Amino acid sequence: MQAKQDGQTYAPKGKAHSVCEPGEFPVGVIGMDHGHIYGMCGGLSEAGADIALIWDSDAAKAAALHAKFPNAKIAKSKEQVLEDPSIKLIATASIPDQRGEVGIAAMRRGKDCFVDKPPLVNHEQLARVREAVAETGRKFGVYYSERLHVEAAVHAGELIAQGAIGKVIQVTVLAPHRLNAPSRPAWFWDKKRYGGIITDIGSHQIEQILYFTGAKNAKVTQARVANYANQGHPGFEDFGDATLLCDNGACGYFRVDWFTPAGLGAWGDGRAVIIGTEGYMEIRKYINPAADGDGDHIILVDGQGERHIKAAGTCGFPFFGQFIRDCLDGTDNAMGQEHALCAIELAIEAQALAHKSAPGGFSG
Amino acid sequence: MQAKQDGQTYAPKGKAHSVCEPGEFPVGVIGMDHGHIYGMCGGLSEAGADIALIWDSDAAKAAALHAKFPNAKIAKSKEQVLEDPSIKLIATASIPDQRGEVGIAAMRRGKDCFVDKPPLVNHEQLARVREAVAETGRKFGVYYSERLHVEAAVHAGELIAQGAIGKVIQVTVLAPHRLNAPSRPAWFWDKKRYGGIITDIGSHQIEQILYFTGAKNAKVTQARVANYANQGHPGFEDFGDATLLCDNGACGYFRVDWFTPAGLGAWGDGRAVIIGTEGYMEIRKYINPAADGDGDHIILVDGQGERHIKAAGTCGFPFFGQFIRDCLDGTDNAMGQEHALCAIELAIEAQALAHKSAPGGFSG
Repeated sequence: MQAKQDGQTYAPKGKAHSVCEPGEFPVGVIGMDHGHIYGMCGGLSEAGADIALIWDSDAAKAAALHAKFPNAKIAKSKEQVLEDPSIKLIATASIPDQRGEVGIAAMRRGKDCFVDKPPLVNHEQLARVREAVAETGRKFGVYYSERLHVEAAVHAGELIAQGAIGKVIQVTVLAPHRLNAPSRPAWFWDKKRYGGIITDIGSHQIEQILYFTGAKNAKVTQARVANYANQGHPGFEDFGDATLLCDNGACGYFRVDWFTPAGLGAWGDGRAVIIGTEGYMEIRKYINPAADGDGDHIILVDGQGERHIKAAGTCGFPFFGQFIRDCLDGTDNAMGQEHALCAIELAIEAQALAHKSAPGGFSG
Repeated sequence: MQAKQDGQTYAPKGKAHSVCEPGEFPVGVIGMDHGHIYGMCGGLSEAGADIALIWDSDAAKAAALHAKFPNAKIAKSKEQVLEDPSIKLIATASIPDQRGEVGIAAMRRGKDCFVDKPPLVNHEQLARVREAVAETGRKFGVYYSERLHVEAAVHAGELIAQGAIGKVIQVTVLAPHRLNAPSRPAWFWDKKRYGGIITDIGSHQIEQILYFTGAKNAKVTQARVANYANQGHPGFEDFGDATLLCDNGACGYFRVDWFTPAGLGAWGDGRAVIIGTEGYMEIRKYINPAADGDGDHIILVDGQGERHIKAAGTCGFPFFGQFIRDCLDGTDNAMGQEHALCAIELAIEAQALAHKSAPGGFSG
């Protein structure tokens, strides 16, 4: 059972399958402001990485991660991790506006990096990351967990690649999240730090739209953000949506929000509906509400009939092993460097487009 | 059991509950180009109307409807129906670009009218209908069947009115339809006649967005149409979507398409997801795919928990009785005249906005 009442600490467990030798891929951790670091380290570790060196400005946070990876050492400083010549990759889930800098610092020292989403929050940071990638040849991997770490989403990608629904026409992603306001740190409410709701949790959805449609790029055709029910936090956005037109003619829509009710047995009733020329599929990611508390459901309808596929245990999370091999071999198979950066670039563009409209919310 | 493989002949049956005396509300039928006329007449008849006089240019079509309503008479001409002083209401499911004219002719003769959706296909027709409504004081009712004749959608409206999910924030409607190309008449493929996919089946969805959000009007913020897989019919659109910002600050998105696969046990896996400040609900209108061949499911999640509500047999289809009473009493309770016209007005606006973009579809 995964703890899944709270998206902050949701760290799926997969089957361990090492793609490298013990000691071949030591990972250093810098910054644990978001609990996603557990999922990131878990995925890498299951694929053969050694979580080797941990640093956070909060010693209690570092100790908590250390308890999960007791073979790791606690570093005295961020610099110690960056300068350690044995560390191959730096993983970070620091505050969103700091993540790009950690990644750049890693790449400038000849290491690869793996950065929680959103990996950065503005165009200036993106330009600096692109520059560092180009100049160093290192990897700037991004943890778009709502696809990479959701077995039903991974399996849906496999089914599409096998032609299960023909050519993909459109992707709709609905991504409600549980707010759990009392548990949130100050930066969570500060748009300059988290980048706005589309940059933050919308980047996941754009990544899925690009991936499932097989597009290389897209144009944002509409975007909207609003604060409907959290006026106590004026810098916060609790709703966002956008439409995309992909460079191959397919298209997408996503909705993100912080309105998961207390009565749902998961942090969010995340769905993706993908229509193709020969059929469609719906992914119920974390729960099948009022039917099954477990997640990873695919409803596939094609010319032959309707099928309910339980994806848990089918394909695991191949991203992590592929990404480790990419780092070791200089390949680009796990996600594609440009794909990872394109998703956040479009998210920042959509966020800016939404800001051009008056701030949304209930009138009167 | 409803025959629901084909949306053209989908005519839900409800409980009979007369709101008027026998003979008090005789209905004349003019034009049966779309099978929706069966659902329209069925709903009116269950609420106490008498289907009294039938005319179609195709005698076989008139005879087929007569077989369902053997107390009716077959008229010799359209004029006979329009001029019959006993007829209170004219129902029409003629070709979309003719429906407005039938309605205007009825109203100009002191009768109310009930028109299949889309009730008209351009702004000029809309202006003439508005003028006729204003000058005659008669009703121009529209059969937006995807809400009015779907018990789960009606019950969802009741639940929202009772405060089940708080204040409605956003409505997403996904409305795939079965193409069944060989069964379609020539006008189905001709955009001038059916108005484009958003005017045609999008008007249903806009009506739902206005209704569920409680908005009086909205602004179309994005719209798109495409022909992805029917290049043999260059005037056809098999995909459309749009986003709306409502006048009360809530918002909506809908997607319409003709890609229901052969393997689905219904003509479309129509869904609506409605999020509110206190919970959300999903409507699975015609089927719960890979789980239940019957329709009318509501998944309701609030602060207390998750519930699966089977709406069949709960509330019936109160629109028809309310509309008959509106016609007899001069009230405006069933839908609201302005609401009915606003939905199609926004659909025509969205369709025009979509046409401003280059026609969409797969590139290359």
